[in-house]
Amino acid sequence: MRRDRESEVVVGVDVGGTKILAATVANDGALGPRVEVPMPGRDVPERALEDALDRAVHDAADGRRLRAVGVSAAGFVDASGQRVVFAPHLPWRDAPVRARLEDRWQVPVALENDATCALVSEHQWGAARGRDSVLLVTVGTGIGGGLLVHGRPVRGSSGMAGEYGHMTVVPRGRACECGGAGCWEQYCSGRALARAAVDDRSDVDPREVGHGSGPTITAAARAGDPAARAAFATVGGWLGAGLANLVAAIDPEIVVIGGGVSRAGELLLAPARAELARRLVGGTHRTPPELVIATTGVEAGLRGAACLAHRVCLDA
Amino acid sequence: MRRDRESEVVVGVDVGGTKILAATVANDGALGPRVEVPMPGRDVPERALEDALDRAVHDAADGRRLRAVGVSAAGFVDASGQRVVFAPHLPWRDAPVRARLEDRWQVPVALENDATCALVSEHQWGAARGRDSVLLVTVGTGIGGGLLVHGRPVRGSSGMAGEYGHMTVVPRGRACECGGAGCWEQYCSGRALARAAVDDRSDVDPREVGHGSGPTITAAARAGDPAARAAFATVGGWLGAGLANLVAAIDPEIVVIGGGVSRAGELLLAPARAELARRLVGGTHRTPPELVIATTGVEAGLRGAACLAHRVCLDA
Repeated sequence: MRRDRESEVVVGVDVGGTKILAATVANDGALGPRVEVPMPGRDVPERALEDALDRAVHDAADGRRLRAVGVSAAGFVDASGQRVVFAPHLPWRDAPVRARLEDRWQVPVALENDATCALVSEHQWGAARGRDSVLLVTVGTGIGGGLLVHGRPVRGSSGMAGEYGHMTVVPRGRACECGGAGCWEQYCSGRALARAAVDDRSDVDPREVGHGSGPTITAAARAGDPAARAAFATVGGWLGAGLANLVAAIDPEIVVIGGGVSRAGELLLAPARAELARRLVGGTHRTPPELVIATTGVEAGLRGAACLAHRVCLDA
Repeated sequence: MRRDRESEVVVGVDVGGTKILAATVANDGALGPRVEVPMPGRDVPERALEDALDRAVHDAADGRRLRAVGVSAAGFVDASGQRVVFAPHLPWRDAPVRARLEDRWQVPVALENDATCALVSEHQWGAARGRDSVLLVTVGTGIGGGLLVHGRPVRGSSGMAGEYGHMTVVPRGRACECGGAGCWEQYCSGRALARAAVDDRSDVDPREVGHGSGPTITAAARAGDPAARAAFATVGGWLGAGLANLVAAIDPEIVVIGGGVSRAGELLLAPARAELARRLVGGTHRTPPELVIATTGVEAGLRGAACLAHRVCLDA
C-alpha cells in the first residue's frame, strides 16, 4: 500500500500535571483542533497515563495516519531524550517513555521536557524566531525554563538545564518544596504574587485574598488597585533580579517570559526590566537583552514537541 | 620567496592588569620559552600598550616569522572578536584591537577575553578535554569565568557571558566595586579568603593578617592552622553555593576551577563539592558534575589565545 504523505499528520501532545493537551501541528506551525483530556493522576499505573495519551493523540489525528508524535512532559527527560527520569506530578518513574510510545504507535516519537518544548516553539514560531541565544523563563505556579545557545536547545548533561526556579536568591530565605531555602520561585511565581498581594494589604483579612489567583490580581492591578500593583512591582522586581544573574552568566540576545503570570504583560515586565537594567554587569558598556512575553500560547509545549517530531522525520 | 611553514610560529600573548606574558605555542600545545614584560599601565596611550605587546610577541618569536598571533585580554571583547570594549585595568577604551594588530603584524590575529581563552586552553589541552559542556570559574582577586556549550565557547551577545563574579548571592550584601552589592566575588575570591581568615581569628590584630595573601593562608591551612582551614571552609562553601545556581541553569558535564586560589586544590574544592551536592536541584535523580582544578597553568590565557589563532589559520 502506498503511504500518502498528505494524509499523514504530526501530533504534538503536552503532558502536564492536571491535563493532557494534543493537536496536529503542520510544518508551518498551523494547529489542528485542540484535544484536552484529564491527566489520570500521579499515583495511577504508568500504563494508564500512556492509554490516556494514546486517546488524546488519536482524537487529535481524527482518523488520519500518524507520521510522528512529539511528547512534551512536565518532568526531567534524560540527556538522550529516551526516558522521563523524574516527574513529581506524573506517574512516570524513570520510564523508557520514548521506546514504549514508539512501540505503541510504530512511528518516530520525540520526547522533551515541557519548558524546552516551549523554548523550541518560541524559537521556531514565536518571540525568539531566528535568534541564536535565548533564555526562556516560565513564571507560573513555580518557575521553569529553557536555554538555547549557538542556535540549539541546551538539554544539559543530566537533562536538567534551565532549572532556574531553584537558583537561590536569598540565603536562608523562604522554605521551598525542593528542600532548599530562598529559591527564586519562592519570590517570583503565581504563588509569590498571591502572597505579595496579601503582604501588601494589612487592611484586609489574609484569608480573604490569600487565595487570590493570578488572573484576579492581574485584573485588580489593571483596574488600578494599589495593593495589586505593588504585588506586581515586588514580583516583577524579583524577576529582574534573578534575570540579572542569568544574564551575567549567559548574556543572551533575548529573554522570553512565558507561563500563566506572563499574561499580565507589562505589569510584570516593566518592574523586571528596571531591576535588570539596574543590576546589569557592565551596564554602561552593553545594551540589556530584549525582554518580551512569549507568543505561542498555552500550546507552546505541544507545538515545540511537534516541531521536534518534524525534525526527527527530516533526520530519518 | 617561498614561505617556509616549518619556521613560522604562532604566538599567544596574555595581556593582564600587571604584566604581559607571551610564548610560542605549537599545534600540539607545546610551549616555547615564556617572555614576560610589564603592562605599561592603564593610563598610558593605547599605542604604548601595543608597542609593549609587539616587543613581547617578537621576543617570543625569537627571529622566526609570525604565522598568527592570539591575544588574550583582561577585558570585554565584543561579540565579533574585533574590539576590546571595556577593560578596567588596561588603556584600551573600545579599541579596534584586532584590526590594529593585524595591520601591525600582517598576519591573522585572534582576540578573546582572558577567561574564555583559559576555557579554550582547558578544553583543548587541559581538564575539560573532549567535553561538550564546560563551566570554567577562575577564583583569583575576583571571579572570572567562561562557558562552553555544544562543544563551542559561548561569548555572549555582548561578549559578556561568563561574568559569574557579579551574580548576586546575598541581597543587600557586601558592597562591590561594580556598584552592586552581594556579588559572588565578595564572598568567594582571594580577597574574601583573606577577609575570612581575619573574621575567624578574633584573637589577633586584623592589621596583622589583614593582608594575608592567598599563598600564606594556603600554607597555614596545609600546616593545620584552624583559622586558615575555617577560611577555606567558608570560601569553599560560597564557591559551592554559587556553583549550585550555575549548575541549576546550565547543567554542565564538568566544572573547572582556575585562578590563583585554585592552587589550594582540595582545601577549596572539598567544601565546595559538599555545598554543591547539598544544594543540587533534583539531587537524588542526577550525578553532580565533576568539579576539578584547571591544569594548563598560568599560561592558560596565552595557550587558549594561541589555540584560537591556530584555528583562524585553519579557517583561512
